[in-house]
Amino acid sequence: MQVRSAEIVLVEDDPYDAELTLRVIKRHWQGCSAEWVRDGQEALEILPLLKPPPKLVLLDLNLPKVGGLEVLRALKGNPQTRAIPVVMLTSSQEERDLAESYRWGTNSYILKPTPFEEFVQIVQEVLSYWLLLNIRPIVPLSGGHQEA
Amino acid sequence: MQVRSAEIVLVEDDPYDAELTLRVIKRHWQGCSAEWVRDGQEALEILPLLKPPPKLVLLDLNLPKVGGLEVLRALKGNPQTRAIPVVMLTSSQEERDLAESYRWGTNSYILKPTPFEEFVQIVQEVLSYWLLLNIRPIVPLSGGHQEA
Repeated sequence: MQVRSAEIVLVEDDPYDAELTLRVIKRHWQGCSAEWVRDGQEALEILPLLKPPPKLVLLDLNLPKVGGLEVLRALKGNPQTRAIPVVMLTSSQEERDLAESYRWGTNSYILKPTPFEEFVQIVQEVLSYWLLLNIRPIVPLSGGHQEA
Repeated sequence: MQVRSAEIVLVEDDPYDAELTLRVIKRHWQGCSAEWVRDGQEALEILPLLKPPPKLVLLDLNLPKVGGLEVLRALKGNPQTRAIPVVMLTSSQEERDLAESYRWGTNSYILKPTPFEEFVQIVQEVLSYWLLLNIRPIVPLSGGHQEA
């Protein structure tokens, strides 16, 4: 595991969706380092190691090994990773998935559109918001009373 | 207290900042209902009553009666209001304010720029993201294991 820093971490098992997202990053965010991880277990191993913490994690719901909701819960329950902005990027519109994501503290929930052009457009808007507008702490939160 | 629904709730004690924000909403989001509340206590009284929950709360940090961080903590600790997207909109860049906001579960943290045009632009981008892209549950979360 060679990762030491990445501004964007994409947790996605679908190679087509990942490829599209990475292409947007390559085209519009050349200065940004991005890391693609393919399952939830790898995400949980890598994310606490990144210094400074990434500006954005794009997290799919259905993932091999460890599911997206479990990854979210672990990230938001750990002061080391709690302040990392996590955006669920998923094709599920189910109220249950929405509710569980907000219960476990997702920062945002975005629906993946199916048409190619729309997908690219949405990813670009999501990246603009979290990379240019949102700010986050650059040191991990201290332990203690981290529950909301 | 006559409020029953509002898509955007602005919690802001500075009349100049509030006026600018409301003007952006009036100009670009005519179909959206917005509510301006001037202190943290009023925010905590009104927000749990809104049905459906708002799409966005813009929350200042320094507020009379009950401060912004305390409002955030109360909203995110209550299943009735936990899924409401809250964006801290503040002029503070202090690492302590950032850390506490993320500790208590803010969805996002945006810096208020001083120049008029920039302020208007940023507010417009924030509204676009949360009103058009982000989705949230329309029924409050059930009680129980709500901690992250």
